[in-house]
Amino acid sequence: MSSIPAVDEASRAAALKRQATLTKPSGALGRLEPLSAWVCAVQGSCPPRAFSRPALVILAGDHGVAKTAGTSAYPPEVTAQMVLNFLAGGAAANVLARMVGASIAVVDVSVDADPAYAPAEVVRNRVRRGSGSIDVENGMTSEETRAALELGDALAAAVIADGADIVVPGDMGIGNTTPASTLIAILTGSPPHAVTGRGTGIDDATLQRKSATIALAVTRGQGLAHDPRGLLSAVGGPDIAAMTGLLLGAARRRIPIILDGIVSCAAALVAREVDPGVVAWMVAGHVSTEPAARLALHALGLEPLIDLQLRLGEGSGGLLALPHINAAALTLAEMATFDGAGVSDRHA
Amino acid sequence: MSSIPAVDEASRAAALKRQATLTKPSGALGRLEPLSAWVCAVQGSCPPRAFSRPALVILAGDHGVAKTAGTSAYPPEVTAQMVLNFLAGGAAANVLARMVGASIAVVDVSVDADPAYAPAEVVRNRVRRGSGSIDVENGMTSEETRAALELGDALAAAVIADGADIVVPGDMGIGNTTPASTLIAILTGSPPHAVTGRGTGIDDATLQRKSATIALAVTRGQGLAHDPRGLLSAVGGPDIAAMTGLLLGAARRRIPIILDGIVSCAAALVAREVDPGVVAWMVAGHVSTEPAARLALHALGLEPLIDLQLRLGEGSGGLLALPHINAAALTLAEMATFDGAGVSDRHA
Repeated sequence: MSSIPAVDEASRAAALKRQATLTKPSGALGRLEPLSAWVCAVQGSCPPRAFSRPALVILAGDHGVAKTAGTSAYPPEVTAQMVLNFLAGGAAANVLARMVGASIAVVDVSVDADPAYAPAEVVRNRVRRGSGSIDVENGMTSEETRAALELGDALAAAVIADGADIVVPGDMGIGNTTPASTLIAILTGSPPHAVTGRGTGIDDATLQRKSATIALAVTRGQGLAHDPRGLLSAVGGPDIAAMTGLLLGAARRRIPIILDGIVSCAAALVAREVDPGVVAWMVAGHVSTEPAARLALHALGLEPLIDLQLRLGEGSGGLLALPHINAAALTLAEMATFDGAGVSDRHA
Repeated sequence: MSSIPAVDEASRAAALKRQATLTKPSGALGRLEPLSAWVCAVQGSCPPRAFSRPALVILAGDHGVAKTAGTSAYPPEVTAQMVLNFLAGGAAANVLARMVGASIAVVDVSVDADPAYAPAEVVRNRVRRGSGSIDVENGMTSEETRAALELGDALAAAVIADGADIVVPGDMGIGNTTPASTLIAILTGSPPHAVTGRGTGIDDATLQRKSATIALAVTRGQGLAHDPRGLLSAVGGPDIAAMTGLLLGAARRRIPIILDGIVSCAAALVAREVDPGVVAWMVAGHVSTEPAARLALHALGLEPLIDLQLRLGEGSGGLLALPHINAAALTLAEMATFDGAGVSDRHA
């Protein structure tokens, strides 16, 4: 796969220069100002455009640990049920995607259900059924990891061919915070207890079991921190590998990414091990209440735009950040300048 | 003026009950969940509707202290210039209002400029030209205070008659953070240095001068904490009094309010002294970097939705919060239920 192009630093610099001419006190738009410069950097132009073709790509997969170690508050069959809910338009991600005008692609990467449960186009790219229980075995084979990464790249290519100008990765999978937390522990050097959160809302006993499960998985994977494919095989799953491929595939094609919750943060860290240039194409939509999310964003050097205590996944926090990203772009593009509007600049 | 009705607690309770049935883990939408219940409480119905007729009301006024005490980084003539910029559509508030579909009303309440500078409909309700320098004299007379409060109420009535379903107060006025900080110091019991911020971006020497100015004004006003009209006369200005009237007028007519920055926070605190019931109709759009904003929101018991380090005013932070408020309403209204979608709820 080709390497990731750099973002356009000249456009970023032009954006910051333009900000200083707009009819507002310098810096008064706060974080929207550097955000507008990021938009220019990824679009390669100043002034920027609002993103009008956002694409949500939901990658669904089950995780062996949810079944064998019981780390989730919900039974594994919910993953397949939620795939159908996405297709019917009833999930939070559907509502938010409609609100911001995002397309939705729903892909069964590794759901643990008879493939007949969903339309063929949703299931036809499935990499495997479920994943290994990463506390005691690999999540998948190296061939499956390669296939999942390639699937993610192909999905990026497909939504971009359909016109997507920004990509939001969405996750769905009962148990997926366990491999995501494991990957974040390994790639940020954090202890298992520091990355373990309550996911969908587990009780104290389940939290202890989950932390112990993550500790076992970290032990299995920690020698592989700089072997991203080996790491994904050992303690990831096909859905997280596909998301890694999606992020890399978007950035390779110069399309930016809004990260969502802990699963996308884990995929982002793995993607950075594949190519550090991918991070420049990312913005952090929000910070989840899962403790590993903040650790991952800190390691990525990304500051979240939103903190509304969300812990849903599905791309929900990424979609919610889009209006702010577009506000940054539009203010830079459309505001009058001091000279143009005849407004006096500050005292000399 | 009539007193403020209570919000509908039955609809709030119905919202929280409905949240528990939606296809997501309980609490996974974080702060959007109680926010959706607030929407139901102010709309008096569950499920709620998205707000589709937001109205930004920008109240412009100059402040004597900016001229006599030199507390701003910008010259006073910028207030009138920015009124014209709003009318031409070139300010940040215009861009953000277009983005979220808000109407804009721009009202010269007390700009210190020859009235011929702007169209008659913008200037015709002016309460006075500029305001007194509140470190040494009253900002306005008691008659002017009454007129400004009534103007705000009339503006609320007008935008609501035009169909507004939510109101965003916007401020414009060189020097307006000085009276706003003074009011917040008095109404939260905070020392002058704790409420003094850099406004549009003042240097250290100006900051010291501003803090001393606020200290003098606090001394002049602190006996009037529970006399809101007297307090506005002593250390406020016509624009802040009109904003107070706008907030009260919206709540009286059962229309909710998205607070913006420090000026709207000051007006909200004064409005609460007039009628404590007004606060139930408010949500805090964002928290400004002005230190007094956080103190005021804490005193009001409101937690800001956004913290993007904005310090612009104009209603900008209030407008930016609208997509999140609508996301809260739409997820509650449109998401499928566990039963309806055939999704399994959590382990018993």
